[in-house]
Parts: sequence; C-alpha cells; structure tokens
Amino acid sequence: MEKILEDQWVVGFVDALGKFVVDVVENKVDLGFIIDVPKEDVQILYKIKKIFQCGRVYELDDGWRLEIRKPHCIKNVVEYFEKHRLRTRKRVDFIKFRKIYLILEKKQLLEKLEDVVKYAEGIRGISSEVIEKLKELKGIG
Amino acid sequence: MEKILEDQWVVGFVDALGKFVVDVVENKVDLGFIIDVPKEDVQILYKIKKIFQCGRVYELDDGWRLEIRKPHCIKNVVEYFEKHRLRTRKRVDFIKFRKIYLILEKKQLLEKLEDVVKYAEGIRGISSEVIEKLKELKGIG
Repeated sequence: MEKILEDQWVVGFVDALGKFVVDVVENKVDLGFIIDVPKEDVQILYKIKKIFQCGRVYELDDGWRLEIRKPHCIKNVVEYFEKHRLRTRKRVDFIKFRKIYLILEKKQLLEKLEDVVKYAEGIRGISSEVIEKLKELKGIG
Repeated sequence: MEKILEDQWVVGFVDALGKFVVDVVENKVDLGFIIDVPKEDVQILYKIKKIFQCGRVYELDDGWRLEIRKPHCIKNVVEYFEKHRLRTRKRVDFIKFRKIYLILEKKQLLEKLEDVVKYAEGIRGISSEVIEKLKELKGIG
C-alpha cells in the first residue's frame, strides 16, 4: 500500500499553501479549507484528501484545488491542526477559524456575531465583502 | 532552546514554496535555492536558515526571501533533500538541479554542457533567457 504522507509534512505544506476560508452563503456562515497547487501536483491533493477523509479535488485555470466544506469535514480539519501545530502565521489564522467553528457548532452565531466578525477580520485573505455580509447577519433570525 | 523544525515539516514547506534556481552570471553557472514567504512569516525563514546552516534572509516588495547561493551551502541543500525525499513534482526539479550540481562540482560544465541545458530545461521556473545563456557558454574556455 502507498505510504501515507507524514503529519509533519502535511503541516509544513499547509503552513505554506493552506487557506482557512470564511464565506457567507444565503445568510449562513460557511467555513472552508483550501489548498491550491500547480497542475503537476494534483496527485498530492488526493493524498491530503485521504488524510482528512474529506474534500473535493477540482481543476482551476492555473492548477488544482482541494476544497473541504462540509461541517463534519471541517471538524476533521480543526481536530487535525489542534493535534498537529502549525508553525507559521497560519497558526493565527487557524486559531481564529477554530473559534468561529466552535461558535457555529454551538449554534451561537447570532449571539456571538461580534466575536465572529472580529475573528474573521483576523484571518488573512477574508475579503471586506465577507466581513460586511457577516455584519449584516445581525438582521436575521 | 527553541525547538528546531522537524525535517518532514521542512520538506512539506519546501515542496510547497521552495525554488531550485539556475542562473548564468559572468559566464559562470550559479545555483540557488530560494524560499519566499509573506511578510508575517519572516521568522520561519530564520529557522529554516538554521537547518541548512546557510543563506541570507532579505525583504522583497511583498514579503521576505531566504536565498542560499554559496557552493558549500548548495551542497548542504542537495544533501538534505537526498536524505529527506520531496513528495511533489518539486522532486523532479530537485533531481535535475542535483545533476547540474554534480557536474559543476566535478568541473565538467563545458564537456557536459548539453546535459546541463537539458536538466535546466526540466526545472520549472528557469527562464528561456537563462537557457540561452547556458547554450552560449559553449564559446567559453
């Protein structure tokens, strides 16, 4: 059987190329985890997918993406990086992402919306558009 | 003392962001190894520098770079990735880079120039300008 990737390899690769994503879709907060690679490296995405036992691999204009979206899959991602510590500034992104995940898991989005906005603002790559959409959720529910 | 990065972490990070570079400077072939990171992650470059016991960390317009150039430092890089196998297409870049390194080390550049050109063409990111400069070396010596 093919040797699985070592955890520290995965952590290093994700420290470099992993992205923790927060979106607002149809008035719901949607968490995601993404890794984009050049087209020659699509095989590594399938190996990483095996580790998280989750995700969808698809082609982009200039490479390939592993995208993990389903809540029970995001749970796997969160637990993985709780166990295997990220070593770059990406750890800060992860800590804030995890806090949002825990709020959503406890269905405390509306009561803790200010915290969610604050955490999302601390994750690199989250657009100001998403932040505005998050703030607008206050009117819901 | 601060915990050093684990080798598999380094391999994963380099699989994602490391670059094997071939240049021609003043009619000499110059090998390099480069890692570019966002500005928040400069500290990780100093840790990687410690592992290779080599390199220079400096600022770019949009981040920071670790650059390893000296031949005895490139030797450290080559030996490191001989020992710790890269897992993506970057391994192919490395294998070709290593072949050029070995030719240069044996001072066989001119007699094996065709091979050097072939290997350099197989490394992603090497410009056609560098390939042309390599071919022109035939006139030298």
